Amino acid sequence: MAENKRAIIIGIPGVGKTTVITRAAELLARSRRTTTVVFGTLMFEEAKKTGLQNRDEMRKLPVEKQKQLQETAARRISEMHDDVVIVDTHLFINTNEGYYPGLPMRLLTIMNPTNFILVSADPQQIVERRKTDQTRQRDVLSVEAVQKELDISQTMVAACSVITGAPFSVVVNGDNKVDEAAAQVTRILTGEVK
Amino acid sequence: MAENKRAIIIGIPGVGKTTVITRAAELLARSRRTTTVVFGTLMFEEAKKTGLQNRDEMRKLPVEKQKQLQETAARRISEMHDDVVIVDTHLFINTNEGYYPGLPMRLLTIMNPTNFILVSADPQQIVERRKTDQTRQRDVLSVEAVQKELDISQTMVAACSVITGAPFSVVVNGDNKVDEAAAQVTRILTGEVK
Amino acid sequence: MAENKRAIIIGIPGVGKTTVITRAAELLARSRRTTTVVFGTLMFEEAKKTGLQNRDEMRKLPVEKQKQLQETAARRISEMHDDVVIVDTHLFINTNEGYYPGLPMRLLTIMNPTNFILVSADPQQIVERRKTDQTRQRDVLSVEAVQKELDISQTMVAACSVITGAPFSVVVNGDNKVDEAAAQVTRILTGEVK
Repeated sequence: MAENKRAIIIGIPGVGKTTVITRAAELLARSRRTTTVVFGTLMFEEAKKTGLQNRDEMRKLPVEKQKQLQETAARRISEMHDDVVIVDTHLFINTNEGYYPGLPMRLLTIMNPTNFILVSADPQQIVERRKTDQTRQRDVLSVEAVQKELDISQTMVAACSVITGAPFSVVVNGDNKVDEAAAQVTRILTGEVK
Repeated sequence: MAENKRAIIIGIPGVGKTTVITRAAELLARSRRTTTVVFGTLMFEEAKKTGLQNRDEMRKLPVEKQKQLQETAARRISEMHDDVVIVDTHLFINTNEGYYPGLPMRLLTIMNPTNFILVSADPQQIVERRKTDQTRQRDVLSVEAVQKELDISQTMVAACSVITGAPFSVVVNGDNKVDEAAAQVTRILTGEVK
Repeated sequence: MAENKRAIIIGIPGVGKTTVITRAAELLARSRRTTTVVFGTLMFEEAKKTGLQNRDEMRKLPVEKQKQLQETAARRISEMHDDVVIVDTHLFINTNEGYYPGLPMRLLTIMNPTNFILVSADPQQIVERRKTDQTRQRDVLSVEAVQKELDISQTMVAACSVITGAPFSVVVNGDNKVDEAAAQVTRILTGEVK
């Protein structure tokens, strides 16, 4: 009997993180009770309990109030007991104040993850995907700027790993290779090679 | 009403950190109560209270005693309530034992900063500035060695950010561009775009 | 009277870590009471006290039980009072789940090291050494993959340094240069330049 997994899956915009997660969750569900939670959505669910009606209101809350919502969401994740819990979130967010860590030590300690999986891709492909993604407002950066974001991701996930003791893995999601990336995520979380 | 800011500004020798801080503090003072503290000076002020007379004596104190002075200085910073407190310090120091962290977790936890700002520059320019700086004894390194110090800075500031939850920003101080660098620091700490 | 040193020496397979440690320990023993401990061996000694007979059994223990053995080993190291204690261990291990941190915060806090020394080498030389090392099963990777492991080492040791406050140094072990590398380790841990 393998232990339960709480896997935090991260990746910069344009790597195809959500597509990989969705496909991996399908594969995992064949043999494991699997839940996927989007961290921001979980926070908003908690915010609604306090009377908030939309996400914009949540973003305008005082910093302290937002921190409380984050901690409540993190605690809910730590209490989930499915075989596999996938947490879809951000390692950092680009803001006017710089790179804002989405997984500070304070939340990592509460969530107590078993795995970090960093979805990555070729920087040129990331730039192309950001350009063609019409559904969201995404910063279109140069290849060089994207490479810098990838470097920072690598550095931050290594720090998260040392802080928590959980291993981290880098899964490359090449163009038209989402099945391979999802299969790799599945292997990491089940230990099964098929 | 924006929250108070405690910004730790760091950068390797030759990036022009102190010049950027001085200019940014002038700009900030137009609209915010702004204080700049040099961490080493604050430590020395605390040391003088115990009877020490010069900085050399402070450096020769037992490690444990030095740690206490650091912690007292960090605590004083955490208790400053100006609109903006800028802390001028070192992310690491080059010593015979290697890279000595100037912002270990122990001090970060006490200072509880709201922002990290890493002042950077082109490595070739840093080498030139170190050569021409007659006022201080500075290691003149190769461009490659300076690039390595920049890489380590990047890595360390990302770790500081994950540990504290505070965002980090990289501000490039190009030759004859200190006003631009200072304006960028000001934007980060006020949220105002001018 | 210099303070006691607890130096954690790490490095990826093929850098020649154990050779450097052995030679450095000989040099150090000329003027300091020096002990070298292999972290995995110390864990196994603790495991034997609970009735285990071989290392394979130890690896098959439940994760929680393994964590307890790690913590007990870390505690024993923190209680060693020789002039120099060298800890031979892994910064990370390559597993099916990715890069597994060998020095998570939990153990760092217990061990309370005074120094990190990262043994490094030219990636091309590392690949060659792994190919010719017949005594152990070692992953033979491309130069590019080895470079990636070196980058991750650098990142992780910087995080360990910020977490503990202990400095880190990178010692390059070039082909046929083990005496130089060992002398550098000795200088770091004694402060003596010969």
